[in-house]
Amino acid sequence: MQSSLSVSDSDGSSFAPLVVLELAENTEAEAITWLLNRIKDKQQNGGAELLVEQLQVSGQDEQKRSPKVFLVGSTWQRLLSGAEDVGLFKEFYDGTMRGFTYANRESFKDFEGDGDGFLSIAECQYIIKHELDTLRAKGEKYVPGYPKVKLYPGKSVIRRLQSKGILVQVFPLHDKEELKRLSFSWYRKIKLSYQPLDDIRHYFGEGLGLYFGFLEYFTFALVPMAFIGIPYYLFAWEDYDRYVLFAVFNLLWSTVFLEVWKRCSAQLAYRWGTLSRKKAFEEPRPGFHGVLGFNPVTGREEPVYPNTKRQLRIYLVSVPFVLLCLYLSLHVMMIYFDMENWALSIYDEDPNFWTSVLLFIPSIIYAVVIELMNLLYRYAAEFLTHWENHRLESSFQNHLVLKVLVFNFVNCFASLFYIAFVMQDMVLLRQSLATLLITSQILNQVMEAFLPYWLQRRRNKKVHKRVKRMMGDKELPLVEQIQLESDMNTYLGTFDDYLEQFLLFGYVSLFSCVYPLAALLVVLNNVTEVYSDAFKICHVFKRPFSEPTSDIGVWQLAFETMSAIAVVTNCALIGLSPQVKAYFPEAETQLILTVVAVEHIILAFKFVLAFVIPDVPKHIQIKLAKLEFESLEALKKKRQAHVRKCWRPQRSQRPISDEGQGGQQQHRL
Amino acid sequence: MQSSLSVSDSDGSSFAPLVVLELAENTEAEAITWLLNRIKDKQQNGGAELLVEQLQVSGQDEQKRSPKVFLVGSTWQRLLSGAEDVGLFKEFYDGTMRGFTYANRESFKDFEGDGDGFLSIAECQYIIKHELDTLRAKGEKYVPGYPKVKLYPGKSVIRRLQSKGILVQVFPLHDKEELKRLSFSWYRKIKLSYQPLDDIRHYFGEGLGLYFGFLEYFTFALVPMAFIGIPYYLFAWEDYDRYVLFAVFNLLWSTVFLEVWKRCSAQLAYRWGTLSRKKAFEEPRPGFHGVLGFNPVTGREEPVYPNTKRQLRIYLVSVPFVLLCLYLSLHVMMIYFDMENWALSIYDEDPNFWTSVLLFIPSIIYAVVIELMNLLYRYAAEFLTHWENHRLESSFQNHLVLKVLVFNFVNCFASLFYIAFVMQDMVLLRQSLATLLITSQILNQVMEAFLPYWLQRRRNKKVHKRVKRMMGDKELPLVEQIQLESDMNTYLGTFDDYLEQFLLFGYVSLFSCVYPLAALLVVLNNVTEVYSDAFKICHVFKRPFSEPTSDIGVWQLAFETMSAIAVVTNCALIGLSPQVKAYFPEAETQLILTVVAVEHIILAFKFVLAFVIPDVPKHIQIKLAKLEFESLEALKKKRQAHVRKCWRPQRSQRPISDEGQGGQQQHRL
Repeated sequence: MQSSLSVSDSDGSSFAPLVVLELAENTEAEAITWLLNRIKDKQQNGGAELLVEQLQVSGQDEQKRSPKVFLVGSTWQRLLSGAEDVGLFKEFYDGTMRGFTYANRESFKDFEGDGDGFLSIAECQYIIKHELDTLRAKGEKYVPGYPKVKLYPGKSVIRRLQSKGILVQVFPLHDKEELKRLSFSWYRKIKLSYQPLDDIRHYFGEGLGLYFGFLEYFTFALVPMAFIGIPYYLFAWEDYDRYVLFAVFNLLWSTVFLEVWKRCSAQLAYRWGTLSRKKAFEEPRPGFHGVLGFNPVTGREEPVYPNTKRQLRIYLVSVPFVLLCLYLSLHVMMIYFDMENWALSIYDEDPNFWTSVLLFIPSIIYAVVIELMNLLYRYAAEFLTHWENHRLESSFQNHLVLKVLVFNFVNCFASLFYIAFVMQDMVLLRQSLATLLITSQILNQVMEAFLPYWLQRRRNKKVHKRVKRMMGDKELPLVEQIQLESDMNTYLGTFDDYLEQFLLFGYVSLFSCVYPLAALLVVLNNVTEVYSDAFKICHVFKRPFSEPTSDIGVWQLAFETMSAIAVVTNCALIGLSPQVKAYFPEAETQLILTVVAVEHIILAFKFVLAFVIPDVPKHIQIKLAKLEFESLEALKKKRQAHVRKCWRPQRSQRPISDEGQGGQQQHRL
Repeated sequence: MQSSLSVSDSDGSSFAPLVVLELAENTEAEAITWLLNRIKDKQQNGGAELLVEQLQVSGQDEQKRSPKVFLVGSTWQRLLSGAEDVGLFKEFYDGTMRGFTYANRESFKDFEGDGDGFLSIAECQYIIKHELDTLRAKGEKYVPGYPKVKLYPGKSVIRRLQSKGILVQVFPLHDKEELKRLSFSWYRKIKLSYQPLDDIRHYFGEGLGLYFGFLEYFTFALVPMAFIGIPYYLFAWEDYDRYVLFAVFNLLWSTVFLEVWKRCSAQLAYRWGTLSRKKAFEEPRPGFHGVLGFNPVTGREEPVYPNTKRQLRIYLVSVPFVLLCLYLSLHVMMIYFDMENWALSIYDEDPNFWTSVLLFIPSIIYAVVIELMNLLYRYAAEFLTHWENHRLESSFQNHLVLKVLVFNFVNCFASLFYIAFVMQDMVLLRQSLATLLITSQILNQVMEAFLPYWLQRRRNKKVHKRVKRMMGDKELPLVEQIQLESDMNTYLGTFDDYLEQFLLFGYVSLFSCVYPLAALLVVLNNVTEVYSDAFKICHVFKRPFSEPTSDIGVWQLAFETMSAIAVVTNCALIGLSPQVKAYFPEAETQLILTVVAVEHIILAFKFVLAFVIPDVPKHIQIKLAKLEFESLEALKKKRQAHVRKCWRPQRSQRPISDEGQGGQQQHRL
């Protein structure tokens, strides 16, 4: 870690600032002193043993207005021992990935001297965040200066301050030099190449590394579909036989590539050390509240919220709300069909260029409305899930993902299902699919990257001016950088990015046999998506904390479900096609039964395939088994040494209690 | 453990014999001495540190004929330290289940004095088996006296001797007193009650405990279906509407009870300490052979067998063989239909009582043939899987189960599928189903318990006479018991028992809507099955070694797959029914589409249900989380103590190398 900036702490020794804490403007001085002391205090006294310093802004008039900003750093030893606390996996000298321990640090590859450069900045920041998060209340009954903000022994202080609004935000600082290098190897070059996934992971952590890995993989996986789709457009193949072939290829291909992705992701996760890393004990999320009770797991006193109450909120409020939203979405869909009919009737009355353009207008309006509804619903879902008061972040995320997925699926695809299976109008289906896909792609790129960037630039200019006015011509890059970064929007995680890819996958796979060009459009979209996402994450949003993840989690399931639904829709579409119907001229029953049988066979085949392809590649399985074996052997040796020591007198049949005690102590070490 | 028998070892001290080793009659004396020494030798010298003694048979003339039998026992300390080696979980004083450690033995519930009675006999025997199995070759290049039987350092000696036929068998002894108590509480009483699962597990181990638990649960789960099925038979309801209701109930019920079983099984496994127990590192199975190479996991020299060769054997021999068997099975089915037609034509010519009885004959013959083919195929499958030369027992089992399941499914149900969907003859389907089910139940009970019991009794009488003649009137119960038990058949595991239940489940669920009485028949069968299985395991077979299992493994998947297939068949049967057809008098298409839609909805509902119902009950999840939390806390404390010790000089920024070394040693302890 070579940071270009440094600040001095109260002892005069300088340290590299890694994480920024921003307290509310009106925070009591008492609380600040207390918090800083807790952060600086030695670990044996229950502190975090980190370095912390207030950001000094020299302009006097500004001091009052500016919020209270603190910079947190750490010594190397503290970071290395923290790396053990968070259970970081690093490469061992023999090439395997092992849990880092401070004691064995010399045996890890790349560990040189005192360990400078052994941890990436992202890892250092993650460790500091973890140490801050696990800074626990000891004897304090409340936050000094705030008698109403109660503290519970053993609970996280930082989370409490966050949920009470005293701590406004915690974020990691960018490293301008490294960011520049990363952006040059990533998106600032024109040459087509793989993304520098290891560099991305090095700078942003495993969560984002996996997202960009998935984005790249997904795009490459679509390339064969896109290529096969091109001739359909070029030669205007209207032959259904060929569409059938295309659909069958699509179905099998989508199963295979989702299965293979698991292996790729396991490989990445192994290389990045998150595959066998244990999940930390989950703290309650900052917003969680309840009445005082006992945690059944830890046995400690803390706020608890009865599960029945939460269930009531979910089933009596959230579920009806989601159903209402779904109803509204279907209602909007019917309005769209009315508009469509109206446009068609105008075109029929007077068919010219302008009325033929008019034919596309309803679809475009509908696509915009869909995106707007998705956006509004997203906020409502977040609010509702927050209100359901989940104790753990993982449970909050699951409920949020479920709500958003169901609505987005219905909202985006209901009209296509209606056109395909109720109206059975394949021409309209193709037109509608194309309009929805293209419009949503354009809207997404604008909403996601360019709009925030534009707002960001306006704000940056202001900050720059203000800092200039404040400092005169003095060079104070750190102050300016922190001012700029603290004003940036917070990146809310990969949720929306995965959701976008999920919907695109739906457009490609659900109705692939009527619009083979969809894959090509998605490939083109994703090529630009890589650039706009990279740019967005580097320059539009605050740097996010690294997130250790070993897979794409619930999204794997979501994509697999989509590909199972795609089997049903594609088989049904093929059954509806006139060419296939021609094979069964008299017996429609026979046709349907054949289609249903084929569908069942494909579904069964998918399940078998998912079962047969191992989720973790063989060579990684062997490496994992090797570690397992070694730890078992070590344990056995330790036990035998123990046995040798404490029951020499083999024939006495009764263990001598003193020696037994000796053995006990040894085990406890 | 209070064994009623004891033998004296060479030092004159007596021990309770737990496990019997039987060597081949012509074993070289050199090899015997070496083996006994290795078994007796101290652990630090690589021995098993067990007690072992040859069984003394006083009759001189018999000595030559009788195979060489050895009795193995152990001291209490050795067993307790072995319990730690195998990772046994026992109840802690606070009611949670924890991995037993010799050092903390006093903190476990039921540990009194020197630990006498803390381990059940089944556990002791399991530990002895484990210690024998992990007795490894050291410097020896071959078995003394057998230069051709090579040994590889670090590989199991016992497995090698077994696969070379020098060691004929290893089996645990029955405890007559305990067996008597168990049989009285289990099957020797008439009063209807739950099975004593804890006692069964105590005597036979977790594998059989779970099997009987499943058998009981499955039978209880079928009771509602059986009750609903009775009126159909009593009142001769031929109304299809009612069959539809019955089928829908069946489908949902089978999903629910399979999901709930997972929870019950988790609860049992937690109570028995196998839920969180880690699997031991798997040794190669006894029959595995190969050329000398390096194991990629352990890095040791040992026989290896290339995977490509195994794949070739599987795909070029096993798969074609299975397909051929399937073809044969279908061929036999067609012969059955010919017979059926022939019987029908005779009945049509002259319908009287005898010819109406003749109508059932083909089905009965076919049922017997099916059972015979299943039996023959079972041997062939075992031979083939053995020949495929799998390295691990688990991989062997998976390939065997897959082969047997596929064939049994086709062999038992193909004719029913043919009758239902090709011939569409519901009357014949019902008759055929009933005949198959009843015949196979009767045959199974005879083959499984009564035939072996009868053979066993004849053999027992002979042994008894021989021992009498040998010993005169001297009381030598141990010799007689060992003679009797070593002649008993070996129980080959729960495979065939689960398979039988799986096929019964198929008869109940696949075509439930045409024969509601099937559930009742299966309930009646299972009530007797419990008794015959209990009797069989107690008196017909050798006592099996206890097998620590935490669930019913692949059978859960097998039952779930069957219940998914049942959705398809039942929906199709309902679609074929005249009453349902009457609702859609003109549009058959509409009918089929509706049926398909309903089927998809039920399947989707099944998946959602399987996803929503947690596999482990909440209160066990909390207990597991508690242990996890405690171990994390303990680790943290240990680390903080470590940190306190080795980097006091906080500001020096560089760790002092001596102190770092100290820390390292401490961690390695």
